[in-house]
Amino acid sequence: MEEERQQQPLSSIIVLHDALVVTMDSQNRVYRNGAVVVRGDTIAAVGQSEDIISEFSSLSPHLVNLHGQFLLPAGGQHVSGMARAVELLGIRACLTQSVMDAGEGLPASWAKRTAEECIQSQRDLYKKHHNTADGRIRIWFGLRQIMNSTDRLLTETRDAAKELNTGIHMHVAEIPYENKHVVERRGVDHGTVTYLEKIKLLQSNLLAAHTVWVDENESSCLLSKSGVKVSHCPAAAMHMLGFAPIREMIDAGVCVSLGTDGAPSNNRMSIVDEMYLASLINKGREVFQKGTTDPTVLPAETVLEMATINGAKSVLWDKEIGSLEVGKKADMIVVNPYSWSMMPVHDRISSLVYCMRTENIASLMCNGRWIMVDKKILTLNEEEVMVMAKNASHDLLKRAGIQVPSRMNFL
Amino acid sequence: MEEERQQQPLSSIIVLHDALVVTMDSQNRVYRNGAVVVRGDTIAAVGQSEDIISEFSSLSPHLVNLHGQFLLPAGGQHVSGMARAVELLGIRACLTQSVMDAGEGLPASWAKRTAEECIQSQRDLYKKHHNTADGRIRIWFGLRQIMNSTDRLLTETRDAAKELNTGIHMHVAEIPYENKHVVERRGVDHGTVTYLEKIKLLQSNLLAAHTVWVDENESSCLLSKSGVKVSHCPAAAMHMLGFAPIREMIDAGVCVSLGTDGAPSNNRMSIVDEMYLASLINKGREVFQKGTTDPTVLPAETVLEMATINGAKSVLWDKEIGSLEVGKKADMIVVNPYSWSMMPVHDRISSLVYCMRTENIASLMCNGRWIMVDKKILTLNEEEVMVMAKNASHDLLKRAGIQVPSRMNFL
Repeated sequence: MEEERQQQPLSSIIVLHDALVVTMDSQNRVYRNGAVVVRGDTIAAVGQSEDIISEFSSLSPHLVNLHGQFLLPAGGQHVSGMARAVELLGIRACLTQSVMDAGEGLPASWAKRTAEECIQSQRDLYKKHHNTADGRIRIWFGLRQIMNSTDRLLTETRDAAKELNTGIHMHVAEIPYENKHVVERRGVDHGTVTYLEKIKLLQSNLLAAHTVWVDENESSCLLSKSGVKVSHCPAAAMHMLGFAPIREMIDAGVCVSLGTDGAPSNNRMSIVDEMYLASLINKGREVFQKGTTDPTVLPAETVLEMATINGAKSVLWDKEIGSLEVGKKADMIVVNPYSWSMMPVHDRISSLVYCMRTENIASLMCNGRWIMVDKKILTLNEEEVMVMAKNASHDLLKRAGIQVPSRMNFL
Repeated sequence: MEEERQQQPLSSIIVLHDALVVTMDSQNRVYRNGAVVVRGDTIAAVGQSEDIISEFSSLSPHLVNLHGQFLLPAGGQHVSGMARAVELLGIRACLTQSVMDAGEGLPASWAKRTAEECIQSQRDLYKKHHNTADGRIRIWFGLRQIMNSTDRLLTETRDAAKELNTGIHMHVAEIPYENKHVVERRGVDHGTVTYLEKIKLLQSNLLAAHTVWVDENESSCLLSKSGVKVSHCPAAAMHMLGFAPIREMIDAGVCVSLGTDGAPSNNRMSIVDEMYLASLINKGREVFQKGTTDPTVLPAETVLEMATINGAKSVLWDKEIGSLEVGKKADMIVVNPYSWSMMPVHDRISSLVYCMRTENIASLMCNGRWIMVDKKILTLNEEEVMVMAKNASHDLLKRAGIQVPSRMNFL
């Protein structure tokens, strides 16, 4: 079946049926025995298996029986990586440069750049890559963080993103020191979020990563009023930053999505793990502060929204992805729940959030094309990549003169 | 090779070689290219592959080349489950009843029990199961928690455990309400730990689960002075209890190990995930409280100790298990790091804690016997168990009249 799928022409019709279809549409529809029809790169129909099969059988579709597996949309907001890798892998991504023009500790290659040069290099990237790879790549503007940005860089980024009708990704309010720095140098009474609102950078095309150290006015008023999206990265936050007031932001109507952050502050790099962590950390924060348990803080369906449709909204791509709906791009995952971690399934939705492991994802389709089938990645040689990574890591440590400290008594 | 291993007589000699051997012995020895010799149920030698192979080759051992995989001891403190399952599976366990004789909401079968009956039923269990299954099963006394225990039950449990030279497992200081209850009803100035010290239950044979809501005197003085062991269950704590002062306890010399707690407050039931969570949550708690990052809080080697040798110490079994040392029982796992989550490996020890996934555990040996080889469990039919669990879950919900609430719009 694998080869068959790989060789399907993009114009063919695929009917995925006999699955629990979690659509994440605006009515939160879930089909117990559902089906999704994919034509080219687009979803042509979503519904009950029986209806779909009888409607489409005359078109001789490729029928894929999923035997009670789960189908979910795959939202994404991965802001790192290279356009080439994305193109090769067949996945979808918003890419940004992590841009800096001020502050301490800048790499030599950045230290000499003016705000204008920073903007121009991003305009060049936009011109070269935006909407390439069959529309799977979008280019955003990036701001490393406020302590590495002159006012000029901040406002020119704001204006350039508006002109090109694209978004801005920025790390916001990561540590208390950052807020202190902003209060002392930029003359506002509380941190980064307050300052960004003053210079009109808080807009609906800003994706604020982390946003941990925000006060009540910032979390419950400034962020929601402006339509800013927040990327909650639980592992990175727990590692290094603290616990963001996610419940408060969601209550205030902020669109919060999930991110992994980069490998140095995550290690596991799995949105599935982030779903589990988001559930745990936000319940834990509540009881740690109040002393009483509230198991309804951040329910499973909210976490699932954060990982799917809110991810799409955060990258301003929800008209095309983030839910399984007719006319949207065919991006989805197939979850095989028949493993020790998910069986037995009592509550399907909470099981997806609390019990699913990354390893339960059997297959992945992006833009109507199978990227992974039965755990085998079709678009690259995984073993080859691992060997390359191993060698590259060895060379990198050597070039950089890094000696990994020995934690135990190695013999 | 799988069948070969399964059919090996217990008296044969197995040499596992060409592995990174993380011994967790008192000198923290790690062999880059190490080997472990297993004779019957016991470790006969640990050392460099080359030396071991030349020393033991005349005995025609079964050589198992692990091709650079990792070998770790498997510590454990799983306090639930049934002796029969443990015997059948071939694993090792301390089992306790979760005993109650007072308080609200007792199940009908417990509500009428006196403290004496509670003790007697545990003595019966001890007589029947302690040291059975080739010494793989030990029976401990159990106390559900202080609000469900009369003073009589607490002190008689203390005395009976002393008499039988076994341990006591008890949930301690889980929620602020518990401490309040103890202050109001038992006349001490701070919660459960203070009261247990007053009645001399704080002793080296007590394994205190959770121990989240403790004040400085309790965490830094009472627990360490008495030699009580603490079972830190990060997922359960984050789910429902709050964040325990683990760093403070470790600084004070308390032996802290890792636990999963039961499925209702964990879902994933994996000590590997708990290692990752313990690292994250304790760094996060520190920065949440102080506002400054300290990446050295709970280093990887400490977390590895918590999951191995400290687990063995916590169940008073460290003379036989918890590290790979000559004369100890042959309990160990084989970790295959050749997967997306662990490659490339920079720092082997931190990689085991931050990057290893449960799925990287390829094989498991307990008491010199292979329980799982190349991810296949040899002692039971995993698919059969999953079907049984699925059916049992369905019947259970039906008998109990539980209707799982629908979180979304199911069609």
